[in-house]
Amino acid sequence: MNFPELLENTASRNNSIVCFGMDPIIEKIPVKGSDIGIRIVKFYMEILTAVADGIAAVKPNYAFFAQYGFPGLKAMEAVIAAAKKKKLPVILDAKRGDIGKSSEAYSKEVFEVWRADAVTVSPYMGSDSVAPFINYCGGGKGVYVLVRTSNPGANDLQQLRTETGRKLFMETAANVIKWHKPGVGAVVGATNTAELEKIAKFFVAARKKVPMLIPGVGAQGGSAKDVAATLKKINSDIRLHRINSSSGISYAYERYGGGDYVAAAGKAVKELNAEIGKLR
Amino acid sequence: MNFPELLENTASRNNSIVCFGMDPIIEKIPVKGSDIGIRIVKFYMEILTAVADGIAAVKPNYAFFAQYGFPGLKAMEAVIAAAKKKKLPVILDAKRGDIGKSSEAYSKEVFEVWRADAVTVSPYMGSDSVAPFINYCGGGKGVYVLVRTSNPGANDLQQLRTETGRKLFMETAANVIKWHKPGVGAVVGATNTAELEKIAKFFVAARKKVPMLIPGVGAQGGSAKDVAATLKKINSDIRLHRINSSSGISYAYERYGGGDYVAAAGKAVKELNAEIGKLR
Repeated sequence: MNFPELLENTASRNNSIVCFGMDPIIEKIPVKGSDIGIRIVKFYMEILTAVADGIAAVKPNYAFFAQYGFPGLKAMEAVIAAAKKKKLPVILDAKRGDIGKSSEAYSKEVFEVWRADAVTVSPYMGSDSVAPFINYCGGGKGVYVLVRTSNPGANDLQQLRTETGRKLFMETAANVIKWHKPGVGAVVGATNTAELEKIAKFFVAARKKVPMLIPGVGAQGGSAKDVAATLKKINSDIRLHRINSSSGISYAYERYGGGDYVAAAGKAVKELNAEIGKLR
Repeated sequence: MNFPELLENTASRNNSIVCFGMDPIIEKIPVKGSDIGIRIVKFYMEILTAVADGIAAVKPNYAFFAQYGFPGLKAMEAVIAAAKKKKLPVILDAKRGDIGKSSEAYSKEVFEVWRADAVTVSPYMGSDSVAPFINYCGGGKGVYVLVRTSNPGANDLQQLRTETGRKLFMETAANVIKWHKPGVGAVVGATNTAELEKIAKFFVAARKKVPMLIPGVGAQGGSAKDVAATLKKINSDIRLHRINSSSGISYAYERYGGGDYVAAAGKAVKELNAEIGKLR
């Protein structure tokens, strides 16, 4: 089974395209205890057990685990194993990318050490920096190339118009098509649905299945409803794509009040699925 | 002491601008033993002890350590501690970069967990993705932004001409100036000295001290002699910059023959310093 098939099957099984982003911030994790790693694992395990049937991927963010050193990374390892046990695709959000040989080492890190199903990579260094990751697509892995990110600073380089008449993010989208194999995807932020639509249409016009990982709903200002409406407009199977929510699920208890973070996370997932609506 | 001062002082003390890149490849490490981590540490400790007075920084490449999982990362931690003990600036080559909050977590990882003095970051996601790293410059840390990398794929995006009339890598160089604080530097590959000169002159014209980290000599085809000659042409203190060699030092024993990797590494460092010539 290649990565696009894994995405579609999981979406069909759980009737969801929600990706659950895991960004541990210890101050926000109500689990008591003295060991940071154990608290993180317990927190995500509890939520995962409650929501696993209603989501369609998890996205551990490497930065948030690594900031806690070895206990944080051990927690990430445990959380990844738990998600895989629940047959959820694991997208390691690590924004990797370096010269060919270093990217080769990074791809070993991501796929063999952390055992992720997919990874996010940065395109600034070009083809030989993403090729080692893409080589794993043959073995069923996925690679999401940053195309149009959801943050304010995205404008600094991504919005520059280039000599080809396209903006830089469309240039990267063109590279995604050039590099295409089943499993090569794109990170496209939810904060600008017009650009999301443009990119999605571009992939469809190229007749390639390019899974999109769409972060930026909730805290960053994007709307799952608008994103889903955009995805339904284009002639692409929505089950291929993922709409990510991180704090919006993990820390939903802050929004709903009360200390029951598991129930709050479950409620947040249900709301997201409702906003997204029918997948067919 | 800010990071540029640390660079200049170390260069003066050791009469060198060589950065020793550490890219562990276990098959090439002649140290015997069953524990990968111990073999890596022993290998670099021995070389470090021999060359510490003749180099001016070390650059552990995160990817090459992380590919060996926890033992690899533990080895990285030990090697960083050893380099700091020898008063060598530690540049963690990790090519980090994400939206603001994630980059904040990455900056904690780099500076507080791994205790590096500086880090390499990718500019694709723009200002809020580099700002959290740059905030550490006030505390004496350094941040090298990828401007013009040394790999073939660098052409895919970095060489595109943008609407401002500048190529993308010069656009990034302009951002480096915009983001400038003492400690903000640039990664500029050794493989194209004409572009290195252009970038260096641009920084000098902006009247900013921008430390350049220059990889790509040796295996990748750049020449330390040419790079040094270029740096001496521009009106910039050469002690601020670093020319990196990784395999060229670690695995010099392959080039010189014989199994004495420590002596070979020492010889490689001496040769590099000779090629670079007088610093004043």
